[in-house]
Amino acid sequence: MTEPVAPAAPAAAARTVRVAIDAMGGDRAPGEIVAGGAAAAAQLGVEIVLVGDPAAISDGLAGIDSGARDAISVVPTTEVIAMADEPASAVRSKKDSSVVRCAELVRDGHADAMVGAGNTGATMAAALLRFGRIRGVARPAIAVPLPIPGSLRKQLLVDGGATVDPEPEWLVQWAKLGRAYATVRLGIDDPSVALLSNGEEPGKGDALRKAASEQLGAVKGFRGNVEGRDLMRESADVIVTDGFTGNVALKTAEGALMGIAGLVFSVLDEPDFAATSGPLKLRLLEASADLLPDNTGGALLLGVNGVCIISHGSSSATAIVNAVRVAATCVEAGIVARLRTSIELEC
Amino acid sequence: MTEPVAPAAPAAAARTVRVAIDAMGGDRAPGEIVAGGAAAAAQLGVEIVLVGDPAAISDGLAGIDSGARDAISVVPTTEVIAMADEPASAVRSKKDSSVVRCAELVRDGHADAMVGAGNTGATMAAALLRFGRIRGVARPAIAVPLPIPGSLRKQLLVDGGATVDPEPEWLVQWAKLGRAYATVRLGIDDPSVALLSNGEEPGKGDALRKAASEQLGAVKGFRGNVEGRDLMRESADVIVTDGFTGNVALKTAEGALMGIAGLVFSVLDEPDFAATSGPLKLRLLEASADLLPDNTGGALLLGVNGVCIISHGSSSATAIVNAVRVAATCVEAGIVARLRTSIELEC
Repeated sequence: MTEPVAPAAPAAAARTVRVAIDAMGGDRAPGEIVAGGAAAAAQLGVEIVLVGDPAAISDGLAGIDSGARDAISVVPTTEVIAMADEPASAVRSKKDSSVVRCAELVRDGHADAMVGAGNTGATMAAALLRFGRIRGVARPAIAVPLPIPGSLRKQLLVDGGATVDPEPEWLVQWAKLGRAYATVRLGIDDPSVALLSNGEEPGKGDALRKAASEQLGAVKGFRGNVEGRDLMRESADVIVTDGFTGNVALKTAEGALMGIAGLVFSVLDEPDFAATSGPLKLRLLEASADLLPDNTGGALLLGVNGVCIISHGSSSATAIVNAVRVAATCVEAGIVARLRTSIELEC
Repeated sequence: MTEPVAPAAPAAAARTVRVAIDAMGGDRAPGEIVAGGAAAAAQLGVEIVLVGDPAAISDGLAGIDSGARDAISVVPTTEVIAMADEPASAVRSKKDSSVVRCAELVRDGHADAMVGAGNTGATMAAALLRFGRIRGVARPAIAVPLPIPGSLRKQLLVDGGATVDPEPEWLVQWAKLGRAYATVRLGIDDPSVALLSNGEEPGKGDALRKAASEQLGAVKGFRGNVEGRDLMRESADVIVTDGFTGNVALKTAEGALMGIAGLVFSVLDEPDFAATSGPLKLRLLEASADLLPDNTGGALLLGVNGVCIISHGSSSATAIVNAVRVAATCVEAGIVARLRTSIELEC
């Protein structure tokens, strides 16, 4: 996967980007996370700070070659927030957890960005509580890149699950933040924005959509409603919705893709086709690689005073490399300043 | 596609089921709708009442063989509710529209059920205003059968788009109605029920989900939350949600399936595979036939005093035959009485 890379600001070019990774977060932590961090250090020319249990990280790093090793440091922590922990209270009570320490490294200037694949709610809560909110943003939102089958384009779904029950004006804030982020992440000058609704007509929607639709009219690039079927075909660069609907839509798309992929491969394994379908299987995997969560590169938490990239719970080493790449792109582009400006200028 | 058919009640067996079809409703009306009605009459042993412009219906029937023709009658109307019309006001102002007359035929006992593929909101509004609501049901909901790739099972999503902004207790009503309908449509004795949410844990959800989850605990068969990825894999027989989220989820799944299908077939057309992929394409189409909207058989409007089957806007003749089959199954099973009982007994 190729990510558009914004030109580095002259001031930032002088020193290497430093990314803190929650080594204990994710279904495949610490092994795949540590391996991903090491690979990112070797491939991307960034400094990696692995945060977590030092013995586990040391085990994971045992096989890494020395060239990359110099770009990797370890910050030891004693606690872990589990997938099942209640996010906000876990962040408050587990002060020496790997994800909280990651957020503090960014807050205190010891790292430029954090990457977490653990408990999503806890990762967001750690970033929100340690970074604070951008002035003028009521609640954060996750900007999830949606792949489009057969296209190199991506679209950003905002909010992918950070904030349920938003007020209509929060969707306006997310639209502005999403536009600013799309210029960096998608490399688009004047991104279009749409509202996810249950029909394209302006009057469609529930109470939230009807109220938000009117207010979104004042956002540059707003082109009206799109529907669920527009999420995975070219429709708008930034698609705004509440975090509940966004989460359901993302998981529905994932489930549909997994279901049809399983069906196609089971047909290819049938006696009539199995003997000759090997090359076709490889080509199908290649053609659909951009649809896999490992390759989408993680989701930026919009609205906080720092760069926090959320990778999916089953992240492999490849997913972590891609998430670090997005984090570095965001840092080099000065994303947080751009996000602040988007709210200040357009408010 | 095979639909489980509930045994006909002895009293109903004496006379043929009569289904009114809105011949003017749908992107491919009247041609495909009329052809579908004629095919249903020939294949299913039902009486078909085609409602709409008599000249257009006559044109459509011109090529039909005489055996089926005896089971088809025409009710002429002068108005049509278009896809873009505002549903409720169109139903009120266009009193001689095909969809309103369909609902009146059912209300007045001249037909046992109606099938409509036109403006979904208008079809629902016509049924709601002419049939009235079942006592104890605040608002209607659409029960949409979800196909599961690679499985013969289906699950019902309730509400697929009839009612946005529901109160929590309406979801409880829909769960009960959905269970009663699942016994007929899915042929299941004791259907399971789940709430669509943004996480499986009991505390997950927005304000609506949190309130509904507690109340749903009292519904027989309730097994907690499911997520978007569970819609298209075996999870629960009845999955309840609000009509906004249901609409977005259905269209998201449709878009994802269309996207990946396009990708797979474009790979099969590549030079390396095109020469030999013919039989594989046919087999893939066959294996995925149950996923096509034409073959899912239409969606029952739950909560009204009559049988109204909503078919999708792009319905072909095949879709209409399948919708009529579902309508007949519902009539023969005495579905409206069963739905009433589900609300009365469990309230």
